[in-house]
Amino acid sequence: MTVRTGRHFLQIPGPTNVPDQVLRAMSAPTVDHRGPEFATLARRVLDGLKPVFGTAGPVVVYPSSGTGAWEAALVNTLSPGDRVLFFETGHFATLWRDMAQSLGLEVEFVPGDWRHGASPEAAAQLLDADLAHRFKAVCVVHNETSTGVTSRVPEIRAALDAAGHPALLLVDTVSSLGSIEYRHDAWGVDVTVTGSQKGLMLPPGLGFNAVSDKALAAARSSRLPKSYWDWTPILDANEAGFFPSTPATNLLYGLDEALRMLADEGLEQVWARHARHAAATRAAVRGWGLDVLCADEREHSGSLTAVLLSEGQDADAVRKIVLERFDMSLGTGLGRLAGKVFRIGHLGHFNDLTLAGTLAGVQMGLELAGIPVGRDGVTAALDHLRVN
Amino acid sequence: MTVRTGRHFLQIPGPTNVPDQVLRAMSAPTVDHRGPEFATLARRVLDGLKPVFGTAGPVVVYPSSGTGAWEAALVNTLSPGDRVLFFETGHFATLWRDMAQSLGLEVEFVPGDWRHGASPEAAAQLLDADLAHRFKAVCVVHNETSTGVTSRVPEIRAALDAAGHPALLLVDTVSSLGSIEYRHDAWGVDVTVTGSQKGLMLPPGLGFNAVSDKALAAARSSRLPKSYWDWTPILDANEAGFFPSTPATNLLYGLDEALRMLADEGLEQVWARHARHAAATRAAVRGWGLDVLCADEREHSGSLTAVLLSEGQDADAVRKIVLERFDMSLGTGLGRLAGKVFRIGHLGHFNDLTLAGTLAGVQMGLELAGIPVGRDGVTAALDHLRVN
Amino acid sequence: MTVRTGRHFLQIPGPTNVPDQVLRAMSAPTVDHRGPEFATLARRVLDGLKPVFGTAGPVVVYPSSGTGAWEAALVNTLSPGDRVLFFETGHFATLWRDMAQSLGLEVEFVPGDWRHGASPEAAAQLLDADLAHRFKAVCVVHNETSTGVTSRVPEIRAALDAAGHPALLLVDTVSSLGSIEYRHDAWGVDVTVTGSQKGLMLPPGLGFNAVSDKALAAARSSRLPKSYWDWTPILDANEAGFFPSTPATNLLYGLDEALRMLADEGLEQVWARHARHAAATRAAVRGWGLDVLCADEREHSGSLTAVLLSEGQDADAVRKIVLERFDMSLGTGLGRLAGKVFRIGHLGHFNDLTLAGTLAGVQMGLELAGIPVGRDGVTAALDHLRVN
Amino acid sequence: MTVRTGRHFLQIPGPTNVPDQVLRAMSAPTVDHRGPEFATLARRVLDGLKPVFGTAGPVVVYPSSGTGAWEAALVNTLSPGDRVLFFETGHFATLWRDMAQSLGLEVEFVPGDWRHGASPEAAAQLLDADLAHRFKAVCVVHNETSTGVTSRVPEIRAALDAAGHPALLLVDTVSSLGSIEYRHDAWGVDVTVTGSQKGLMLPPGLGFNAVSDKALAAARSSRLPKSYWDWTPILDANEAGFFPSTPATNLLYGLDEALRMLADEGLEQVWARHARHAAATRAAVRGWGLDVLCADEREHSGSLTAVLLSEGQDADAVRKIVLERFDMSLGTGLGRLAGKVFRIGHLGHFNDLTLAGTLAGVQMGLELAGIPVGRDGVTAALDHLRVN
Repeated sequence: MTVRTGRHFLQIPGPTNVPDQVLRAMSAPTVDHRGPEFATLARRVLDGLKPVFGTAGPVVVYPSSGTGAWEAALVNTLSPGDRVLFFETGHFATLWRDMAQSLGLEVEFVPGDWRHGASPEAAAQLLDADLAHRFKAVCVVHNETSTGVTSRVPEIRAALDAAGHPALLLVDTVSSLGSIEYRHDAWGVDVTVTGSQKGLMLPPGLGFNAVSDKALAAARSSRLPKSYWDWTPILDANEAGFFPSTPATNLLYGLDEALRMLADEGLEQVWARHARHAAATRAAVRGWGLDVLCADEREHSGSLTAVLLSEGQDADAVRKIVLERFDMSLGTGLGRLAGKVFRIGHLGHFNDLTLAGTLAGVQMGLELAGIPVGRDGVTAALDHLRVN
Repeated sequence: MTVRTGRHFLQIPGPTNVPDQVLRAMSAPTVDHRGPEFATLARRVLDGLKPVFGTAGPVVVYPSSGTGAWEAALVNTLSPGDRVLFFETGHFATLWRDMAQSLGLEVEFVPGDWRHGASPEAAAQLLDADLAHRFKAVCVVHNETSTGVTSRVPEIRAALDAAGHPALLLVDTVSSLGSIEYRHDAWGVDVTVTGSQKGLMLPPGLGFNAVSDKALAAARSSRLPKSYWDWTPILDANEAGFFPSTPATNLLYGLDEALRMLADEGLEQVWARHARHAAATRAAVRGWGLDVLCADEREHSGSLTAVLLSEGQDADAVRKIVLERFDMSLGTGLGRLAGKVFRIGHLGHFNDLTLAGTLAGVQMGLELAGIPVGRDGVTAALDHLRVN
Repeated sequence: MTVRTGRHFLQIPGPTNVPDQVLRAMSAPTVDHRGPEFATLARRVLDGLKPVFGTAGPVVVYPSSGTGAWEAALVNTLSPGDRVLFFETGHFATLWRDMAQSLGLEVEFVPGDWRHGASPEAAAQLLDADLAHRFKAVCVVHNETSTGVTSRVPEIRAALDAAGHPALLLVDTVSSLGSIEYRHDAWGVDVTVTGSQKGLMLPPGLGFNAVSDKALAAARSSRLPKSYWDWTPILDANEAGFFPSTPATNLLYGLDEALRMLADEGLEQVWARHARHAAATRAAVRGWGLDVLCADEREHSGSLTAVLLSEGQDADAVRKIVLERFDMSLGTGLGRLAGKVFRIGHLGHFNDLTLAGTLAGVQMGLELAGIPVGRDGVTAALDHLRVN
Repeated sequence: MTVRTGRHFLQIPGPTNVPDQVLRAMSAPTVDHRGPEFATLARRVLDGLKPVFGTAGPVVVYPSSGTGAWEAALVNTLSPGDRVLFFETGHFATLWRDMAQSLGLEVEFVPGDWRHGASPEAAAQLLDADLAHRFKAVCVVHNETSTGVTSRVPEIRAALDAAGHPALLLVDTVSSLGSIEYRHDAWGVDVTVTGSQKGLMLPPGLGFNAVSDKALAAARSSRLPKSYWDWTPILDANEAGFFPSTPATNLLYGLDEALRMLADEGLEQVWARHARHAAATRAAVRGWGLDVLCADEREHSGSLTAVLLSEGQDADAVRKIVLERFDMSLGTGLGRLAGKVFRIGHLGHFNDLTLAGTLAGVQMGLELAGIPVGRDGVTAALDHLRVN
């Protein structure tokens, strides 16, 4: 049995530390999901989601993980054999690609080195060349949770526009929404996919699709089989504040509270806070003399930082020491990055002193693991926090 | 704004009144779903589910509604165009049938009057006649939440066995599991579908599939497209206490507590408690001079009672009065029963005095709605509770 | 181990069933009791208490039980050897009298039969005769929790006024405040004593004194030793939203929520609700053919009903059956009423159906205990609730 | 409105950060305090307290603050005019002395400089000289919450023993119990006073007296008036698991959980953890080039550190910056230390990374306040934590 003498530091890049007021909100008694009290809640939540996605259109909420919301985005808009463009930005882009294949889509996967975002240049080239408009969708992971690298979605949009290409733009914002600047409508995204357990500050259990008019039009001719994920009956029932199948009521209570918190802070300020914490984290990494995985200054993630160790150093050994000695969970290296990186989540309900504690734990863990590091990492981060 | 001066009586047939210790358990901080603490929890929960389903085999848990678990049962075992046998026992059987059709299955729907369970005789006749074994699955709703009528699953199983028919037996236990006697293994069921929000005493948000070896074998050749619902990666990851996509951690905390409560009470005692409350409820209905919808004494539901009003009486008017005057939610008439019945849920975390309060509210509501009823309904129920 | 299959019915006359939103409010993190966030809370709570007591003056809040608040009322206003008038209305009046004696006060105790409130006639007689004004205080229990009998405080006030007597009027409202009509200022009360765990719908742990100007003046010359209970430093610190010793922060969170609930319902409506539930309870008692202990129609308590059994009947045996069979706690007979009465609490966070469940449990318990009772008690209560 | 984007750091020296499992435990429904379920709880809690105090004797629990428990210690053991020896170790020793005076005791107050504990030498001198045994009690604050200086209680005990003096030894452990080594029986203490909100990890609202046989004997002849604080009826009722007045049930739920946590960690380990965190904190203070208030190496507090600023530096300005910029509450300078020190609480539910965050906040706050400090404070603390 682990004896815990203080709060666990959950510094994986999601699930994030759920605010205690959200947990309390979730512990209210479940109500009749067909009654007036629920309808009031549902309408408030469905409305309150829109500014967070930056959309005036509808947001579909599923009892599901983010993975389920990936599936929903695909099955609602596409048909068997449709050609879809993915970018190999990391582990999650790869998994989403795998899903598309298993659902019967034909995938073009632009290779990547897991240190850069989706290449707008590659996108432009492929789309320009696709005169027959065989690509029905372009799928981008806005913030690769496995690498801490963002993709410049507006530039992908620009490539579509420049090519005059009608493909849908589907974007995974699982670890960016509510943390990193994102604008569904302004950026011309057709389906935005996310989950509850990161910037939305909830436990896992809800998946989301923000849906453009163009996506809704595509849904009308989409032929992938669907029932649970089908937007149509959900959007119909949502009009009155209801859902066709039983919604995850208590998670919606938490969402209601989390949306209130985001609105109170102000979305621009939420983004600025995450960016500032990310910059302070990179200052610490530099102070340790280590490398940030992200190789493009324009693409640093505001929600997590992946730290790249050298050949012969074991990132999972660092993580194990940090967990056992300091009761902090860090993200592991996924896929081809296994053992080579660890990931520091600095998103969600998070503040300066929690970041300081987080970085202190990483610094001590690195030292205890015998990784030669400069001992000024934390101090450099504090300097950043103090003057910014 | 409604001012609530005491506990709401949530007497729809699910979601049920969540025990406060389950709500408290759910409000523990979310942990790393890839860490050792989570793995211990997951293994305990996955093991603890088995006796509740009456199975030695695996139970797959999804972040989803029960509707999602319906879909999972179908897409894991069947292929496009497969022929499936359904019984029109009520609204939910009809919805599940609709789902099967929309997923591309070919459905035979045995008609019913919504006052009886699935007919073992009809099943026998169709299965005996199906010498080519074109039926790949028989789908039964164990307890029709829309009618309060159970289906005699062992007799359906017997019909399959008598015909020597290899079709899979898929059973919906959304409103029976953890309330009404049910035995996945002993009854030869292949997939048992349920949700979290009824007998399992949780908020909605989890779907379940208990899976037989035969169902697992069928999954290997099934060709319906699937990714989120695919059992295989989930069962693989479950071995180590993990999930391929982010699990609904806090609902699993609640499930852990709910399973402990069911084990403490003892499953046989749980079933007996529900049966006794159902009998007391029927005594009240008789005391009022009204009819229970269920027309077969062998098929009364232990978890809910649908009360049938006469022509010209408005069941929804009764429900509205009960909600507004007595802060109790009753179930509405669904589909063809709209306005004709109301449903009293007496399942989940429930005891004698809460049942007494529930029936008192119904009696007063009927009187206030101008339905001529005997005023001895509640007293008859109390007599039943006292001597049984 | 008791296995609980639904909510316990806590129908003692306090502590009462704490609303779950109050429990949730109490589970917020404790804050710095010397910081600005606390001060805002404290001022809101201290202001919000005033209308509940019916006063424009200050209310002192202690971390204590109601018993502590009794002591506070005495030691702040009186000096060793002061003569104080008490009325033997029941067990709690007797205990308060005992406390006064043990603190060195000289007590006159007007005898009573525990079925009536404090006698305004006896008060008038004693006060009229006390030409030397040796009585320094008159102490009345507004609602005797041991008997379910109220005292007519305005008539005691009138007796003081008619006699032109300067004695202070100290009133215990432990089981009436927030349940039964009470007006500190309008009724000319000098110190009103209460606790958190009844009409205020909180767990036990807070004691209260509402204090008139005359009481504050008396405090300046009072010579009973005091430190913890001393009003002066508390009232001084309260000005700025603070307390001289550490306040019970989390109970204050709950109080904040409870005050909001009382304000939302409206105090007049709160009183009417309790009176209506008390009348329905008496209808049930009559339906059973039993006696209510309170012998004066003007003095029935709105918050509890004590039921008097006959010689040879054991009230505690009824209570034991009700607890074991129906998981409901009823109040025991205290002091000279031991075994002769049981008490039904119908106060605090409470509604019609919970009352119906409560009375159903009592009816079944009486029958199971072999007490011959009419079986129409619950029905009579329902009739009352339905038409009132 | 403050927008909180992460957990508040409550680093005053109490109330401390309440563990969320304690808050959850406290939010269970209140039960009948005269019923069997409560009695089981009460007995478990009363037994579980004993090892924490290091006593085989009884511990009395009050709904009160620690201040109330001070009063209880005095009024149960002493009589008007009794002579009592206090030591001026800081603000709280002064307040306790004031209380004794206001209760009618005659106080000898050994002067002190607020940087040292109670002087065993001074105690020896006064006790040796008191041949008439006019001192009835010696009152010591084990850990001065206002200064971060402990008193060496065993040496005070030795002074009493050497003098063969019968005075009672009363010790305030409000901010040491459950944090710093303390042994009621082994150290020959007669009454140990504490509160719930520090090392016991609860919200405020409970006061405690651990009581020796000698104290119980003294209580029999004590003549200070008492009722609420009277040990006798409480100890009598505690035998059966009950209390004479309504106990603070939900705080007892929390206490039950907190005692389990302390037992799981092990008291020796709890003490070692606090001592290690205190040493790391002092390493930080040295790294900043500042002074710890405590002037005797033997007397450093394990639960808090008071940092002394220089003439012209404003400690409250630092605190204000830290609160506003970093959402952390630090303790203010009390009494004669106002503005000159700030106090860092590092007690209760606390771990290395929370300490790191705390010290980071202090370091940044000092810098922002323009106090010239070395920037290696946090790093020095991390070095200490890493290698110890």
